[in-house]
Amino acid sequence: MNHDDAWRQAAEWMGTLADLDGAAAVLEWDRETIMPPGAAEARGAQLATLAGLRHRHLLDPSVADALDTLAESDDRWQAASARIARRDRARAQRVPESLVRSLAEQSSRTVATWGEARPAGDVASWLGELAPLVELTREQATALADGGDPYDALIDLYEPGTTYAMLEPVLEDLADRVRPLVDALAGAGGPALPTGPWDEQAQMSLSRDIARDIGFDEHRGLVGRTAHPVTMGLGAGDTRLSTRVDVTEPLSCIMALLHEGGHALYDQGIPGDRRRTLAGDAPSLGAHESQSRFWENHVGRSPEFWERLSPSLAAAFPDAARGLAPADYVRALNRVERQPIRVESDEVTYDLHIVLRTRLERAIITGEMDVADLPGAFDDGLSELLGITPASPSEGAMQDIHWAAGIFGYFPTYTLGNLYAAQLADAAEDALGPIGAVLAEDGPAPLLAFLRERVHAHGSVMETPELMRQATGSDLSADPFIAHLERTYSPTSSLS
Amino acid sequence: MNHDDAWRQAAEWMGTLADLDGAAAVLEWDRETIMPPGAAEARGAQLATLAGLRHRHLLDPSVADALDTLAESDDRWQAASARIARRDRARAQRVPESLVRSLAEQSSRTVATWGEARPAGDVASWLGELAPLVELTREQATALADGGDPYDALIDLYEPGTTYAMLEPVLEDLADRVRPLVDALAGAGGPALPTGPWDEQAQMSLSRDIARDIGFDEHRGLVGRTAHPVTMGLGAGDTRLSTRVDVTEPLSCIMALLHEGGHALYDQGIPGDRRRTLAGDAPSLGAHESQSRFWENHVGRSPEFWERLSPSLAAAFPDAARGLAPADYVRALNRVERQPIRVESDEVTYDLHIVLRTRLERAIITGEMDVADLPGAFDDGLSELLGITPASPSEGAMQDIHWAAGIFGYFPTYTLGNLYAAQLADAAEDALGPIGAVLAEDGPAPLLAFLRERVHAHGSVMETPELMRQATGSDLSADPFIAHLERTYSPTSSLS
Repeated sequence: MNHDDAWRQAAEWMGTLADLDGAAAVLEWDRETIMPPGAAEARGAQLATLAGLRHRHLLDPSVADALDTLAESDDRWQAASARIARRDRARAQRVPESLVRSLAEQSSRTVATWGEARPAGDVASWLGELAPLVELTREQATALADGGDPYDALIDLYEPGTTYAMLEPVLEDLADRVRPLVDALAGAGGPALPTGPWDEQAQMSLSRDIARDIGFDEHRGLVGRTAHPVTMGLGAGDTRLSTRVDVTEPLSCIMALLHEGGHALYDQGIPGDRRRTLAGDAPSLGAHESQSRFWENHVGRSPEFWERLSPSLAAAFPDAARGLAPADYVRALNRVERQPIRVESDEVTYDLHIVLRTRLERAIITGEMDVADLPGAFDDGLSELLGITPASPSEGAMQDIHWAAGIFGYFPTYTLGNLYAAQLADAAEDALGPIGAVLAEDGPAPLLAFLRERVHAHGSVMETPELMRQATGSDLSADPFIAHLERTYSPTSSLS
Repeated sequence: MNHDDAWRQAAEWMGTLADLDGAAAVLEWDRETIMPPGAAEARGAQLATLAGLRHRHLLDPSVADALDTLAESDDRWQAASARIARRDRARAQRVPESLVRSLAEQSSRTVATWGEARPAGDVASWLGELAPLVELTREQATALADGGDPYDALIDLYEPGTTYAMLEPVLEDLADRVRPLVDALAGAGGPALPTGPWDEQAQMSLSRDIARDIGFDEHRGLVGRTAHPVTMGLGAGDTRLSTRVDVTEPLSCIMALLHEGGHALYDQGIPGDRRRTLAGDAPSLGAHESQSRFWENHVGRSPEFWERLSPSLAAAFPDAARGLAPADYVRALNRVERQPIRVESDEVTYDLHIVLRTRLERAIITGEMDVADLPGAFDDGLSELLGITPASPSEGAMQDIHWAAGIFGYFPTYTLGNLYAAQLADAAEDALGPIGAVLAEDGPAPLLAFLRERVHAHGSVMETPELMRQATGSDLSADPFIAHLERTYSPTSSLS
């Protein structure tokens, strides 16, 4: 097949996929923000119908020749789009539709049970629904693996190009080096901020100002408010992020804004004319998380960021912010604590929670561990890694929704994001000088330009390990992240 | 084919249509309310993709046998669904895809030209794009008519079951009887309300209160704000209406809320388990408009409605509403004026604008009139019907978007709505007593219950003429509407 004809055909086929994905994202954004409660069932049916049509379109046999032609293209973007298309089609073909349906039904049941069982600490009910879900997930993983490692096949859904063999030594090295830091730092940081009230409208207005300041383009997106912060790409020119608002303190709003802002800047950084191709997105969740963590942790925890924000804080919260210095916010952010809940963890302890989950889910999927042993193994692992024991199963193995939703292989991408973010921060400092000094002198723009060039512009032309190697000059490593923690908490930092 | 199997198959097929329609409605609602400007192109592509998938699904040949079986069903709802399905499939088959595409492209061009030409009064540019659009529309009408009358075929898209032969005598009778009323009443009514400011948030909050008061269920819908008020059904349990806000006066907000509220109550009145069938909607635009006009004109212009609203107005606008009595609002609403703009018309003159447009578009589609003669014929007609001449073409034939968008046969449904609303108001008074007294004693609930039973519950089981005959006991007639105007403006009404 002629190359130009192949691209025309493939581009039209990918455009329809992009339209269906964008439409589904609009339906989901609406659901998370304003959908009336009575619409839940109809919205579920609409999303299921779109997913069914997407599935059928993805497997359209008439585009196979075009994709084969393009896979050999010299144009890297086109070749990558064809590679991703063939990967997604192969995945969709390996998992029978009956299994897809069983997984969807059993994960709905398990999430519903989890939602009721968690507050009650009712481990038995949760495990009762989790066990069949794990069986189905093992089936799915085996089908996807096609003779390979089943846990790798699940990781590949979220982090293509990364295997457990690549992850394990880095995660274990990380755990070994973080644990002494926790011993040294637990109790460090400063007191919480006063409880305000921190005006809710002022928090949202400040969030929009911060988004604009770091380079978010409101012509091509918007900032909303949800209970759980989220970023969604609804199509070219439509990137939406949300933050949460807690009237008793402003940090969760601002840090969520920076986190989602990092995701949103990535989405807006994909070249517009390439948004309707399969390479027109991040290559993995870890790559995406590297951007959110860059802005959250390497920009948002720096004293210079809070110096820069100080006049806006004073104006937004004339009462609540009175008498607070930038260092007060940084110290409140950087408290280190041994506590069991992942989503409430500080930057030092966070990845220990991920190391634990990765070990456990790997053992579950390969069959080395029985589902029934999960709660005990979780408690033992937390005790070993963090020196604490959850007071109840709600604070232990039951705390996250992921496993109940049938999502295994996703957790490690959080830590990959942290590690890649630190590697990128080092590379940015090599190129531009210290991040704090850049912020103080030129604001966030040079940092965004750096990320645009090294990461965003490439879409999924490379898989993440190669993208990050080229962007940072080094392979995945815990070194930059550990060094970042040591600098943040060194006796000469502003925390001292 | 077995009847139950046929219904199962048809219901699933219709469910997918409903899901695609609901998804498109979510995309449109989002576009009208919060979509960032940079997303316009992508949103257009998403909607086009959904429309293409809908078209393909609508014509799915595998459901034909099931629809044939159901068309003979004793279950009226199922038979009506099959009838509508077969009608829509026949329409889609009669108009070739190339013509559908040409119409879409030429109407986009004409709307764009109209948007620039109207403010400039540039008739020539507008006519230059309108002429080829009319040619295409005549082709479409001829194809749809399948040997019948082409204008009837277009009316049938919006008002199935109604023909020009049914409409014409009623419209002309209406014109003959309204013109002397205009002569007698022009200049009647009262002064405009003070210019406030009428607080914008208070207008929106009051709008939600009014919506709840007339029976709108916020569990299954919401009230938003847009530049152009609109009502949309986004699926079962998701009916959304919007109103506009003008800080200098509250009437446009409240009347738009009542108008859209009427549409929304109709949408919410369709039995929930039938929403995913083709009979689960109003049978025509005129039927829908009968509901919006009922609440806007027969409830919203009554002194008792404003009596009921009086405490809320005083609370919402402590400054702007000070010293205003209910009768002041009614008098401001009921000013009668000879002026050229349809959308700014009062209740008395409004239908003369529709009579004019219906005459003209009928002549254009049948070929009796040339497009080039439209502006002059418009001015002549306005002069004959209303005794005024537009100052410029922007206030004449160019004022509405409909023709530029290729929408012919739609205008008469506005007047049908007014006439059916008056017939329904008479029927409600026969059943419940005077509407004002009902409002004063029991509020709006008995009126909604009446409309639910007589209109909403029936979906599209009957076409509109039969539905209204059963609901009101009489055929389409201008009598009740004329009588309503005479009562409203009689010397003993609250306007005197």
